[in-house]
Amino acid sequence: MQITEKSGVSPERKSILNFLFGRPLSSEEDAKEQIGPAAGVPVFGLDALSSAAYGPEAALTILIPLGLLGVAYILPISVTIIVLLSIVYFSYRQTIAAYPSGGGSYIVASANLGARAGLLAGAALMLDYVLNVAVGISAGVGAIVSAVPSLQPHTLGLCLGILVVLTLINLRGVREAGLAFMAPTYIFVACLGGVIVAGLFESIVHGGHPIPAAPIPRPAAPMTAVSLWLLVKAFSSGCTAMTGVEAVSNGVQAFREPRVKNARITLTTVIAILILLLAGIAYLCKVYQVGSTPPGQQGYQSVLSQLTAAVAGRGVFYFVTIVAVLTVLALSANTSFADFPRLCRSIAEDSYLPYLFTIRGRRLVFSFGVYVLAIVAGLLLTVFGGVTDRLIPLFAVGAFTAFTLSQAGMVVHWKRNPGRGARTSMLINGVGGLATGVTTCVVIVAKFTEGAWITVLAIPALILLMSTVHRHYEEIQRETECHSPANLKNIVPPLVVVPLQRWSKLAEKALRFGYVLSRDLVVLHIATEDQQQDPGKDDLMKLWDEYIEKPAVQAGFKPPELVIVKSRYRLVITPIYEYILELAQKHPDRWISVLVPELVERHWYYFFLHNQRATAVKLILYAKGDRRINVVNVPWYLS
Amino acid sequence: MQITEKSGVSPERKSILNFLFGRPLSSEEDAKEQIGPAAGVPVFGLDALSSAAYGPEAALTILIPLGLLGVAYILPISVTIIVLLSIVYFSYRQTIAAYPSGGGSYIVASANLGARAGLLAGAALMLDYVLNVAVGISAGVGAIVSAVPSLQPHTLGLCLGILVVLTLINLRGVREAGLAFMAPTYIFVACLGGVIVAGLFESIVHGGHPIPAAPIPRPAAPMTAVSLWLLVKAFSSGCTAMTGVEAVSNGVQAFREPRVKNARITLTTVIAILILLLAGIAYLCKVYQVGSTPPGQQGYQSVLSQLTAAVAGRGVFYFVTIVAVLTVLALSANTSFADFPRLCRSIAEDSYLPYLFTIRGRRLVFSFGVYVLAIVAGLLLTVFGGVTDRLIPLFAVGAFTAFTLSQAGMVVHWKRNPGRGARTSMLINGVGGLATGVTTCVVIVAKFTEGAWITVLAIPALILLMSTVHRHYEEIQRETECHSPANLKNIVPPLVVVPLQRWSKLAEKALRFGYVLSRDLVVLHIATEDQQQDPGKDDLMKLWDEYIEKPAVQAGFKPPELVIVKSRYRLVITPIYEYILELAQKHPDRWISVLVPELVERHWYYFFLHNQRATAVKLILYAKGDRRINVVNVPWYLS
Repeated sequence: MQITEKSGVSPERKSILNFLFGRPLSSEEDAKEQIGPAAGVPVFGLDALSSAAYGPEAALTILIPLGLLGVAYILPISVTIIVLLSIVYFSYRQTIAAYPSGGGSYIVASANLGARAGLLAGAALMLDYVLNVAVGISAGVGAIVSAVPSLQPHTLGLCLGILVVLTLINLRGVREAGLAFMAPTYIFVACLGGVIVAGLFESIVHGGHPIPAAPIPRPAAPMTAVSLWLLVKAFSSGCTAMTGVEAVSNGVQAFREPRVKNARITLTTVIAILILLLAGIAYLCKVYQVGSTPPGQQGYQSVLSQLTAAVAGRGVFYFVTIVAVLTVLALSANTSFADFPRLCRSIAEDSYLPYLFTIRGRRLVFSFGVYVLAIVAGLLLTVFGGVTDRLIPLFAVGAFTAFTLSQAGMVVHWKRNPGRGARTSMLINGVGGLATGVTTCVVIVAKFTEGAWITVLAIPALILLMSTVHRHYEEIQRETECHSPANLKNIVPPLVVVPLQRWSKLAEKALRFGYVLSRDLVVLHIATEDQQQDPGKDDLMKLWDEYIEKPAVQAGFKPPELVIVKSRYRLVITPIYEYILELAQKHPDRWISVLVPELVERHWYYFFLHNQRATAVKLILYAKGDRRINVVNVPWYLS
Repeated sequence: MQITEKSGVSPERKSILNFLFGRPLSSEEDAKEQIGPAAGVPVFGLDALSSAAYGPEAALTILIPLGLLGVAYILPISVTIIVLLSIVYFSYRQTIAAYPSGGGSYIVASANLGARAGLLAGAALMLDYVLNVAVGISAGVGAIVSAVPSLQPHTLGLCLGILVVLTLINLRGVREAGLAFMAPTYIFVACLGGVIVAGLFESIVHGGHPIPAAPIPRPAAPMTAVSLWLLVKAFSSGCTAMTGVEAVSNGVQAFREPRVKNARITLTTVIAILILLLAGIAYLCKVYQVGSTPPGQQGYQSVLSQLTAAVAGRGVFYFVTIVAVLTVLALSANTSFADFPRLCRSIAEDSYLPYLFTIRGRRLVFSFGVYVLAIVAGLLLTVFGGVTDRLIPLFAVGAFTAFTLSQAGMVVHWKRNPGRGARTSMLINGVGGLATGVTTCVVIVAKFTEGAWITVLAIPALILLMSTVHRHYEEIQRETECHSPANLKNIVPPLVVVPLQRWSKLAEKALRFGYVLSRDLVVLHIATEDQQQDPGKDDLMKLWDEYIEKPAVQAGFKPPELVIVKSRYRLVITPIYEYILELAQKHPDRWISVLVPELVERHWYYFFLHNQRATAVKLILYAKGDRRINVVNVPWYLS
């Protein structure tokens, strides 16, 4: 046994790949790529944090018809969401400890509830991650475009540009992504935090009735009475604020040791900030009487824009805040890039997705997952022209389905692993699962006609696809697995078929190699009209005795058998494989090796100068042939 | 020697191919596909005949600034063109007899003036044929669109539609093309002939001053004095009427026996009709005082439309005539489809173009030439959006260059083959060559700035390309030709390398086949992180002794050497070929066979489920390897 090591790459070489993606990382450099909580918050938390920018707004939009009364309802709705969020938080905190190698909903559900439940959670999350990329980017770009209307015609271009940048950064590795997104994330948090603190202060100073620093639109007069259905719909819309919460528990492996602790700190930080932001925004909306303005209409202004203007006026701080909000919205897609490839990797390791998802690329990320996510999101953006508002109702269903399955899974987990605190944990997860389960149903019902039905159809389709992949891999495994020593007895040389059109050095090389393989050679010559009309061209028959038969006898070999097939319809490949299939039938006990002489050009642009018969013969024989036929390419390299 | 016959096709089977292209024709059915003069006129004459519709008009357009005086000049200009046409006719009549196997300018020039002259003629004609397709179709569609303006937005679609129909018809064989285009051709000739005869009668009845049957635009007042330069330019433009004349002599082989006679009758018919049409149109223009109206401007009306209206009024006959003219214009591209593939075939037989051009397809036409023509013309049409007016000045240069070279070649031909009438023939060709040579210069100068310079650049580029192809084929020929009997001595079994990642039936099959080839086997195992992190997966090392080494010894073989290559950067293919290249360097005297086990799927859509390592290894080894390395695919078919 000889053990060597080959890098196969020159990491320090200057190349376009190294420039774009950074030098390749060896598998041992894994630890250096791992991150702590400071980078973890931007990598896994952007999606959750950016929800603060659209969750409350989505709820307030539903409440517009209630006028000023609707604005008052934002407080109880936000509290409900925050309670739900806290339950989910405790649940995922436990999951991180229980599954330190990465405990996404897929893993928890499939480990505890069975493969079907796991696939349901996996499919729901995959869909959600893809939607998150498309919707996040287009929301950010939409806001930028509404601020700078001259960019309007370039909406799709901007979206795809951001998508490409996100893809490149994420292909450079998780650590670099963390570094790249750290500044915008923390500026966003600091600005919104500043707005909330200042607003609270004003509110206290003015006894709960602060005066806006800049004029803001007043909510319109009420157009309808309050109804439970309206409040439920507002709650459902507000629940989009909870998407992205599961990211950290799925990516535990990306953290450096102590892994569980670091992941938990990250999760706690993200959720704590999110809760503070949601609560602060809800409170300020109430006291400043800020409601949604009808989206897509003249004079539209986002809730955060109104709040910031009300608290701080339209000065420099206002613009910094708005830019930070837009940036974070556009970058919230990054959470998908961090998590989607990991999720797919987990699913692929169970053979439900192509194994390509399990291979780590040059920067130790699961590159194939990044490519797939980028391509699918790019297609969505392109199809919808960069405006994916209509996809928003599809959201949240996936996330809540995953939450519910994850927590149900944890309940079973605690049941199976009783110990200190297991009963409490089980209770928390049980309550959480019930709450998110009910919310899932509410969200589906409330948004069914608006688009949630697409999710309800797409998830089973995805599950079906994954099951098909799994079945196929299992069949292959069953067919090819071998639990016995190699059978190396009774090895009989194959029948060798050499298709030859004319005598040349290629032909000679093929014959020589044929005699390496076997003593039973057949030279197969297809006579098309060229040869029939112009016998001078067909030198093979004239030369046969002198050039082939005699040297073979002299070398002590049985001379090859010459088979000439006339092809009336000028086809060459078809008669070759027809002959070989017949030969295989006649000799059911022997292998058949087809030796195809092949001219190898050094440059691709010579491709059209030659017929690609070798490739065509191989492909057709593989498609129609059987197990005993193989194709040997005998290359002739042109110098 | 065993001689069999395989059709490889089932000609009568119902299939989409048979429906589109007709059943395949065997090589023996060649004679049935050949055509007589009746079909020859539409197949090879459409281009020439349709010239009557745009040649005179092109000359008259240049003469617009002269007003009524310009219209008078059309008669001498047409007479000059007709004289030139007659000379060219006599020349090609002789060429047909001298080169009964097809005597296009390429063949005549290269046989008599050398390869360079032949290539010049060939390139000029190829360019002309491609332009003819684009310009012919877009002229026809342009006329249709100006008649039915609501079709305007579909210009490109209509052009491409006609292109597809022409391509399909021509792929069905030359006989079917003749049948398909016979009716429109003869209706066109009959209608225009009717107009001319009726016009002549009117003119005689009214003593040379006939009265128009319908009002037609009067030529504008003269804006400039007559100048020689203007007349020369008008003549150059009128010369476009002569394109397409060489088609018959190029396609002699398409005619049935007596081949020369049939081809000559066809040529005579086409030229006679064309001369009568040109003369008739010129005369009627003069007596009816019909001039061009400024193209592209309000109130534009083509010369033929004005003439027909003047002679026959705007009744049913007018509309039938106009529809026939438009149809023939759009179909004039067909001459290119008949001749371009034959021209390319002649050039490819001399190795100046890919050999693919010499292969006859299922309907005995040179399908590859048809595809190339359709694709290039389709690209031209698409790039110009279906409006190729700007390409018209590029025309004619190619045709006249070819005429000149062809006739110069014939002069040499007669010099070399003296005999009865050779001196007269030589004189005719000499005068003709001189006349067309002068005309070529005039056309180039007159139209240089309008676009003829593109032709002057494109022709040398095309010649360069063909020379490169020729040189490459010659190099291959030199490298691979073999003028000695096969050397079958000292055949040493190769070193066999089997890359294996895990133990399976595929691995077993590869090992068995390896021992067929040689006793010197190397099993190459690439250890990526999967195996390093999870030793349980890497069963190959654990099973080695029991599953591979022991059975090999028992069977009396030298056991394979196990080489493990650690790949720090998780690459698999690179370490494989690096190892193999090293091995080849270490054993400069031996062949190396790389056995790649390959999973063969029955359906293409399973492609993504497997890494395509076998293909990748083969491609890379071919790109970087040397003559002693070959790749053997050991397929494993999934049932």
